[in-house]
Order: sequence, then C-alpha cells, then structure tokens
Amino acid sequence: MSEVITPMTLIPIGVVKSPIKEPTPERLNLKEIFSEIIINENLTEALDGIEGFSHIIVLYWMHRATPAKQRLKGHPMGRTDVPEQGIFAVRTPHRPNPIGKSTVRLLERRSNILKVQGLDAIDGTPVIDIKPYIPGYDSARDATTPDWVVRDE
Amino acid sequence: MSEVITPMTLIPIGVVKSPIKEPTPERLNLKEIFSEIIINENLTEALDGIEGFSHIIVLYWMHRATPAKQRLKGHPMGRTDVPEQGIFAVRTPHRPNPIGKSTVRLLERRSNILKVQGLDAIDGTPVIDIKPYIPGYDSARDATTPDWVVRDE
Repeated sequence: MSEVITPMTLIPIGVVKSPIKEPTPERLNLKEIFSEIIINENLTEALDGIEGFSHIIVLYWMHRATPAKQRLKGHPMGRTDVPEQGIFAVRTPHRPNPIGKSTVRLLERRSNILKVQGLDAIDGTPVIDIKPYIPGYDSARDATTPDWVVRDE
Repeated sequence: MSEVITPMTLIPIGVVKSPIKEPTPERLNLKEIFSEIIINENLTEALDGIEGFSHIIVLYWMHRATPAKQRLKGHPMGRTDVPEQGIFAVRTPHRPNPIGKSTVRLLERRSNILKVQGLDAIDGTPVIDIKPYIPGYDSARDATTPDWVVRDE
C-alpha cells in the first residue's frame, strides 16, 4: 500500500473493425458477429503463436461509454423486471474503468490481423490486450450465477 | 478511426491483499491461494449482487512488471524447452499494457471486502475492475491450445 504507483495509462495496441457500428442496449447474437482486430504493425511479432489457440481473450477500451451514465447500481441490460444490481455485478460498459473483456473464437491470423467470431465491441474500439484463452485457468466448470443471468450455454 | 480518443487512464478501484508478496517465475498452485480484495469504500454499493455469483473476473494492474523486460517474444514461463512465443500468445506480465485477468472463486463478500480463492496477483496490486463470471460468455467449452500449455482442468 505504501508503494509508489506510477500512473496507469494505457496505450492502444490495435483497433476493432466490426459490423456493429453503434452501441446497442439489446443483447446481440454474438455467434453471428465476425470482426477483425487490426494490431499495430510494430507489434505483429508479438502475435506469433496465437494461431495455436482456438480462442483468445480480448481486452478493449469501451470508448463510447458515457461517464454521465455512470452510477453505482442499475438494472442489468435495462431489465426493469430484475432488481438493481451493483455495476461490478453486471457487465455494463458504464464502469469506473471502461474496460471490456470478451472471449472469442480465433478464426484466422494473417500477419497483424486477427479474424474473430463473437466479439462484443463496436467498430473503432481501441484494443489494449490480447491473451490466449487457457481452459481451467480462464474457465470455472462449476460456476453458478443468479437466476436473472441469461447463460449462453 | 477518426474519432477523438480521450486518454485511456485507469483509476484504482481497490487493492489486493495476498500471501504472495513478491513476483515468482514459478507456477503457483492457485487453489491454495486465499486473498482479499479491498474495494474503495465509496464504491461499496457497486458490489451489491456480486455475492450471487460463485466466480468473478478480476482485472488488475501488474505494477511490478518491468518495462525493461518487455520484449515481443519470449519462452512461456521461462521454459526453454518451448520455442519462443509472441507476448500476446502467453500470459507474461511484461506486455504493452500490464493488465492481469484472473477468474477466481468468490468465497465471501463482506461490505467492501471480497474473499477469493485462486487470485494470481501479488500483495498491493491495484485492482481496476470486478466483473461477474458468466458461463458461456466467459468460457469456451471446446477450446483447444498448443501442446506446451499446462491446463488446470
């Protein structure tokens, strides 16, 4: 706690090209969303080996999130049938640090371009990290959720 | 792409209290690591509802990562038996944006304190986001990895 923390400033490592052009309140069928992640050319080599993974984790900066909308609680996905939840208990983009995290299928890597399926980020979103998806480390086989959560399984 | 991107600066939302005091190159048995996440008191209400989830995703700033060590490729976990991989194909903390992501079991929430099992972050690590773990959205049932990856399943 007594350590000096340097400023936590992110640098973009790439950008999302997506058919989703605007934020939508609705839940998307992510299986139908095919996007490209264009990584900065000077970082191309840092992708070497990623093609060995079927899935990757994408961290991105939700640049269209509105600070004015940032409250500590809200109805998940605007569903007024569900009691208000804390923002850390839902996946709203309106959070103290607007970082999105998606697990997506990696369809193809071509040099600095990743073709992916299921990316929940709009066109132009700055990408801040790519990580390989590692079953067991990134998944929890016995995970449980409240009843209001719609699960994709 | 033509949009003006505001600076991507993170604010800490809390801090990790962990029995792990120093970075270690070895792979830890995460099941044996019990930590606390102390969320800033002004954000306590934002945790409401998180106790309904068995697992959460923790995003944190790996403040002890050394920029000098940052290269585009390296041996995963220092294993020289494995060919060098791009840093986006491994989970090294030495990456352009030193953000860590862990899926952990939530054992207890008490006001602004989360007790968790399996957090791969050292004592004093700034926390930048808490998200609920949602099976299907955050997991990939049929995921495959290269042979060099040690899977926890």
